Order: sequence, then C-alpha cells, then structure tokens
Amino acid sequence: MDIMRVAGALVCTRRVPGLGTTDLRLLRDGTGGLAVATDTVGARPGSWVFTVSGSAARYAAGDPALQTDLAIGGIIDDWTDDDAP
Amino acid sequence: MDIMRVAGALVCTRRVPGLGTTDLRLLRDGTGGLAVATDTVGARPGSWVFTVSGSAARYAAGDPALQTDLAIGGIIDDWTDDDAP
Amino acid sequence: MDIMRVAGALVCTRRVPGLGTTDLRLLRDGTGGLAVATDTVGARPGSWVFTVSGSAARYAAGDPALQTDLAIGGIIDDWTDDDAP
Amino acid sequence: MDIMRVAGALVCTRRVPGLGTTDLRLLRDGTGGLAVATDTVGARPGSWVFTVSGSAARYAAGDPALQTDLAIGGIIDDWTDDDAP
Amino acid sequence: MDIMRVAGALVCTRRVPGLGTTDLRLLRDGTGGLAVATDTVGARPGSWVFTVSGSAARYAAGDPALQTDLAIGGIIDDWTDDDAP
Repeated sequence: MDIMRVAGALVCTRRVPGLGTTDLRLLRDGTGGLAVATDTVGARPGSWVFTVSGSAARYAAGDPALQTDLAIGGIIDDWTDDDAP
Repeated sequence: MDIMRVAGALVCTRRVPGLGTTDLRLLRDGTGGLAVATDTVGARPGSWVFTVSGSAARYAAGDPALQTDLAIGGIIDDWTDDDAP
Repeated sequence: MDIMRVAGALVCTRRVPGLGTTDLRLLRDGTGGLAVATDTVGARPGSWVFTVSGSAARYAAGDPALQTDLAIGGIIDDWTDDDAP
Repeated sequence: MDIMRVAGALVCTRRVPGLGTTDLRLLRDGTGGLAVATDTVGARPGSWVFTVSGSAARYAAGDPALQTDLAIGGIIDDWTDDDAP
Repeated sequence: MDIMRVAGALVCTRRVPGLGTTDLRLLRDGTGGLAVATDTVGARPGSWVFTVSGSAARYAAGDPALQTDLAIGGIIDDWTDDDAP
C-alpha cells in the first residue's frame, strides 16, 4: 500500500458499467506522479491517504466485481517513523 | 488507475481466442511510454482516458475470462487539481 | 517478495471496513522508498522483514477478503548471499 | 498490455509441473529489457507481439491454473499512431 | 516472467502460516536488485532461473492458497537470443 495525497477529482460521464457512480479522486504520490483511485471513505483534497492496489481494491466497497485497480483504503491521522531524520 | 491518451489502434489478426474481437487501442502515458488496452467505451485518437489494470480489467466488458490486463475505464470530461501550479 | 525494514506505524481511524483493525506498519525498502503493509506476525521498528504483495497478501491473515496489497510475510533471522562482496 | 519483440527461446527441462510443455519465448521490450513469456500463438524470432501480464495470462491457453504471469496475446500486423513524429 | 540468478537463502523462523515450510531463496535480477522467491524445484546458488510473479506464483506448488508472490518456475539450461550482439 502506498501513501498519497488527494489532489482533486475526475469527471467522467462515459465510463464502463463496472464502476457505477463511484467517486474518482485524482491523487499525487511522493514523486509527484498522478494516479486515479476510487473513494468510498470520503477523502477531500489535501488529505493524506493510503491506497490499496490490485485485486484487493475491488474488495474495498464490498463488491469484488468493481472495476478498479486502486482504492483509497483510509485517511491517515498520524504516523511514526523511527528512521526519519 | 492511470491517465493516458489514445494514440491509435492495433491490428492483430492472429491472437489468443480469449480476446475475441475486442478493439485494441494504442495509448501513450504521461512519460511518452506506449501501452495497449482493450476498449469497450469507444475512445477515439486524441481522447484522454483513464485505464484500469490487472484483474479488474477483465471485468470491464462483463466477462472475467477476457484475456486483458489493461482496459479503458472511461473517457475524461474534466478534472480538478488543487496542486496544479 | 521483497526485503524491507520496519520504520514505524500508521494511525488511520477512518478506513475501509475490509481492513478491520489490522495493524498497519510503515516500511522502508532498499532505496529508501516508503510503503504501508498489514502485519500479522508482530514485527517491530528496526526489524528486517520480507513482504508479500498482490493477491497473496490477502491470504496472509487467513482471510482472502482482507483489503490489503502488501503484508509482512515473516521476520528475517539471517540470510546467506554468495554474491555479496 | 505491452509491445515487445521476440528475441529467442528458453530451454528449461526442469520446471514446475504447472507449466507443462508450454513454449517459452525470450522477449525484449522497448527499452531493451528481457522477459520470458508463454506462447500459444506460435510467434517467431523477430515478430512484434503484444503481451498480457498478471492473472489474464493464465487464461491465454484456456487453463486458469497455468503458472505463467506473461503470455503472448497476439502477433501485431500493423498499427496506427497519430502522435508519432 | 523474469530471468534471475540464485544468490543464497533466507532464514525466517517466524513467518505467516500460509508459507508453511517452503524454501525461500534470495535472488538477484539483471540490475543487481534483490528479491525473495519460494522454491519447489530445488535451485542452488549460482543457478540461472526464471521466476513467476503474482497470482500464478501461488499455483506453483499446487496450492493456490500459498502466500507467495514470486516463485521459481524452472532452472534455465540454455537460451537463444537472435538480438544478442
């Protein structure tokens, strides 16, 4: 799972049926790269979140048939890092 | 899921049976790299799309046995990016 | 599977139901990159561990529906490396 | 799916039972990197092919239990690329 | 599938139940990076092998519930490479 930050949202009226009306968020990872994730926890722009990829993402909303490969798994409140300088 | 742009199409008469007659699009990602994706939404060259990879791609056309690892998930109408300069 | 080192922990009160109350560890890989993994073996900061990714991670805690894509697979006691200088 | 070129073949008499006697091809990707793929369409050295990775590769030969993570999906006859210089 | 070389072994007495007592090998890929793989074919340090990743790795030992994401698929006897200089 990776740590990312919510940057915005995506508007896609024409999409595959398997995504239903799930919210799509625009995320930015540690190196500035962009990714798109489904969101079922209600993350807002500026939030730090961790993301779940692969087949596990399909289980996020309780529906293994959901056509997503990246889902927001949770909003990060805090973290400890013993290696941080 | 990633944001890519449709660059063209691929002609492959000899392919594995598991792909049937699904359309194959040539996509270019943010760094210029090429990828091939199945398309069930009818994206055209020049369209910005988001792609779904892995096992979720197989669910895109309603057939989990479809032999694809990258599917076009939707055509992007618009997006907001609070971090954009 | 990859070799990583436990760097800390992650506090996320708001998360997807599929993760339950599983412990989340912050890991650092060989190049210093950060990753988040579920932990069912009780690894502590400073431990060297190997991680299991993808669908196999969901089987780590005996529950294939667990929404994780990276799990700590074991704590490394020792290793041999014939190629090491 | 990715575009690669067949570079040769691999001889492995001692292998896991899950691969049976499937042909193994040596492929080279756009950056010169090497990969090994199972081949059920009969691609020859020099052919341009597209490859299917992950769980979809296991469906290529009609046997989801086949132990492969990369399969040749088809031989490319031609492609169009509107972005090409 | 990737071509790697066996560099050594990993000793982990405390590991997830899903791995049982499977042998764990330390591998080095073409760029010198390290990886850990389960081994059911009996590869020895110095052997060139090809590895199978993702869900296919779980099928290597005949047990889809095995918690591994990388398995040694076979020992390479020889290969041909028409593109080699």
